[in-house]
Amino acid sequence: MKKRFFAWGLCLLMVGLVAGVAYAQFAKTDEAIKYRQSVMSVIGTHFTRMGAVVRGEQAYTKESFEQNAELVAALIKLPWEAFMMPGSDKGSKMKREALAQKDKFMGLARANEAEIAKLAAAAKTGDFNAVRSQFGTAGASCKACHDEYRSR
Amino acid sequence: MKKRFFAWGLCLLMVGLVAGVAYAQFAKTDEAIKYRQSVMSVIGTHFTRMGAVVRGEQAYTKESFEQNAELVAALIKLPWEAFMMPGSDKGSKMKREALAQKDKFMGLARANEAEIAKLAAAAKTGDFNAVRSQFGTAGASCKACHDEYRSR
Repeated sequence: MKKRFFAWGLCLLMVGLVAGVAYAQFAKTDEAIKYRQSVMSVIGTHFTRMGAVVRGEQAYTKESFEQNAELVAALIKLPWEAFMMPGSDKGSKMKREALAQKDKFMGLARANEAEIAKLAAAAKTGDFNAVRSQFGTAGASCKACHDEYRSR
Repeated sequence: MKKRFFAWGLCLLMVGLVAGVAYAQFAKTDEAIKYRQSVMSVIGTHFTRMGAVVRGEQAYTKESFEQNAELVAALIKLPWEAFMMPGSDKGSKMKREALAQKDKFMGLARANEAEIAKLAAAAKTGDFNAVRSQFGTAGASCKACHDEYRSR
């Protein structure tokens, strides 16, 4: 009986540790919120720059578009750990459902990462039609998560 | 005389255009300030994480340190254009001297970029002593610019 109790305790501890890794880097919810908002703000700037090119408001140059796409592809991996910090729905636009539905949230997040990675790959080819098409798909995958988990 | 006047006018225009490229991406000073503060905030988080490793508060793993260093090396190239936007000293911690002394500011900025690039290179070797030493040098090059151009 004692052994079983110990085994359950160990299990709980391990689950806690594994879950903890994701947001252990932030001491306070404020820090997690500031971090993810900063990352998303930088992403927003560079995504908007690509949008201006896709809409024909700015000239397309392979090098510049590729730089923006690669930067966004690197940054989009960063904020999720900060979103998953318990209590970090308070004082931000994140709906509390994001924390209650971690698997669904992370599914949308990873799908978004994948679409942004495809955008960076398309940008590397320099094929503007492919770039434009994948930009739309990537943007829709950002929106899918915003629609679900971001308050207006 | 007319020709010379025209030539001078053209020169001024070209200088203006070249200087303009640096901050033309921002429509308002508020946007430039938000952008550079966001970039610096993300850099700060990841630089602090490396600092904890260098001080022995966190275990050193080559992979994780390399990721942090590469991310900071990519991000540190971004904010300078936003710092150089005229009028963007108001409503931020940047001293107005930064705009009056663009060459000196940009000299410190590029030196900082170079030291961070060396940190990423050291991180790639996995030699912790080299990493620790270059982390100090890189940090000092951040501080050199902060001391000069950031209000407390």
